[in-house]
Amino acid sequence: MEFKKLGEFALIDLIKVDTIHNKENVVIGIGDDAAALIPAPHQLQLVTTDMLVEMVHFDLSTTSAWQLGYKSIAVNLSDIAAMGGHPTHVVISIALPSYLSVDFVVSLYEGMKEICHEFGVNIVGGDTVSSPNGLVINVTAMGEIDPKKLQRRSGADVGDLVVVTGSLGDSGCGLELLQQGKWTDYEFFQPLVTRHVIPRPQVTAGAMLASFGSTSMNDISDGLASEVNEIARASHVGMRIYAKMIPLSAEVCAAARALGKEGLEYALYGGEDYQLVFTIPPQQFSLVSQADLGTKLTVIGEVIEERYGVLLVDEEGAESLLEPKGYNHFRQ
Amino acid sequence: MEFKKLGEFALIDLIKVDTIHNKENVVIGIGDDAAALIPAPHQLQLVTTDMLVEMVHFDLSTTSAWQLGYKSIAVNLSDIAAMGGHPTHVVISIALPSYLSVDFVVSLYEGMKEICHEFGVNIVGGDTVSSPNGLVINVTAMGEIDPKKLQRRSGADVGDLVVVTGSLGDSGCGLELLQQGKWTDYEFFQPLVTRHVIPRPQVTAGAMLASFGSTSMNDISDGLASEVNEIARASHVGMRIYAKMIPLSAEVCAAARALGKEGLEYALYGGEDYQLVFTIPPQQFSLVSQADLGTKLTVIGEVIEERYGVLLVDEEGAESLLEPKGYNHFRQ
Repeated sequence: MEFKKLGEFALIDLIKVDTIHNKENVVIGIGDDAAALIPAPHQLQLVTTDMLVEMVHFDLSTTSAWQLGYKSIAVNLSDIAAMGGHPTHVVISIALPSYLSVDFVVSLYEGMKEICHEFGVNIVGGDTVSSPNGLVINVTAMGEIDPKKLQRRSGADVGDLVVVTGSLGDSGCGLELLQQGKWTDYEFFQPLVTRHVIPRPQVTAGAMLASFGSTSMNDISDGLASEVNEIARASHVGMRIYAKMIPLSAEVCAAARALGKEGLEYALYGGEDYQLVFTIPPQQFSLVSQADLGTKLTVIGEVIEERYGVLLVDEEGAESLLEPKGYNHFRQ
Repeated sequence: MEFKKLGEFALIDLIKVDTIHNKENVVIGIGDDAAALIPAPHQLQLVTTDMLVEMVHFDLSTTSAWQLGYKSIAVNLSDIAAMGGHPTHVVISIALPSYLSVDFVVSLYEGMKEICHEFGVNIVGGDTVSSPNGLVINVTAMGEIDPKKLQRRSGADVGDLVVVTGSLGDSGCGLELLQQGKWTDYEFFQPLVTRHVIPRPQVTAGAMLASFGSTSMNDISDGLASEVNEIARASHVGMRIYAKMIPLSAEVCAAARALGKEGLEYALYGGEDYQLVFTIPPQQFSLVSQADLGTKLTVIGEVIEERYGVLLVDEEGAESLLEPKGYNHFRQ
């Protein structure tokens, strides 16, 4: 069915089922001029927003509506995770081109509801408008954090370890497989495509790391090179990152070979891994490394004085400046 | 200059000047993964979001960048006002087509900063991405309200008066003048165009009305007919609205004549006036009508039992159902 026939209010009625996963902090959800929410006492409120544009951030020939819905929430929860916070609510705006059906939107919302259910996040509002051209999705996510645990980019200290969650480069490599139409040829590479299409935000790890005393944190949305430079710039420190310590999956190493690339390139300059990179004093790290964060942690380097800059140490031990180039939001 | 040359981080540096107008409630503004904000104690948090799409919600041949920036914030503050709340923060996402310059974006943000400054609202974050087609702007506004003063759509009671702020239909008529290219011909009609292009949200009035005991409230974004039906539906009441009591400006009456229309049509079915319609017991209204809300109040009808529906009483006293048709977000 087309939206013009269905109408905006009927669409809202269709969407608003199963949107509240934590009733305790919601007074008004979808359906009034604004949502009304109960903030937890003594917590800071976190807010972040991300816009996804068709043919810039996604291509409907390589993602399903469900996957796109899931991802559009995931990228925002990842930002909340990178502050050490717990996500609480989202509001969702969608500009719909006439070539998409009501079924598409229902499926998009099913993906959104799935991840919101998983993380106890409420969908409390939104806006649905028409688009003369492509699909545009904007999500604003809110969260909460104990002020003492807030993770800024600016807290890294000389002597801290630089650590990442999970493995890096999978998503960027998965995107290239999709773009080249190769992913159907290589069953083995399916996990890379999955990590690109429905990334999992590191919400549990982010909150636990903040409790264990990490000093700065970023989510890895634009490639590791860009993210460590952001922390270094904000914290007025340098870093020494060891190439051989950067965690690469077996899949990314194999796929990179098949594509004639290096796995490390995807880790450094690919985008959208949505893992976390953080700094932490060594004694704190020895404690956190014994905890179960639901993901592996890998030390990839150390924080050094600002005057050295951000250095990459290659396999032979040679150092060079690690430039903050990488994934570009202005892809067009 | 083009954005690709400037880069995302340089653009953020350009934008983030003069974005914090109330330092007391901000720990982190623009520049980290998420903003970190201090909620006022014992208040509900309000959140609303609106997406504006080029050639659906605006046409760059009839609005300046500054005006568009102002309006994109205004429409969101209007939703906060309709809850009786005080706006506190906004986050802004923009998808930029390559044909717009850095100067355009700077001017767009100047309009945004102007209205944010006016209402003490902080710009605490955003996302800037490229668009293969038109300009898309999404604003999410946050606000606060004392739980006892929260204005829902569902609180109207039989016997309440139905009241509006300001005059209605100006914006819808202004849009038609713009679309027909007639506004330059008629100096006298300029106020109508202004009310369409840079509407003023009724933030002060909304908060004061909530304090004086209004029982339900909506902002008039989709035409009066649609808004009163929304309140009636949510409150399970009917209404009797008197056509001759609906406040029309001298300009809209004159312009409607020039366009061969009725001023009342714009008030009922035009959009984007961003005035408030509310219900209030008569004794409370007698108190509020003596206060200075910075705008005029006009009683346009009364709340009746649900079984009568929402009725329009015409100049001759004849009653008919007032259908909730009107301004359509699916304009394409």
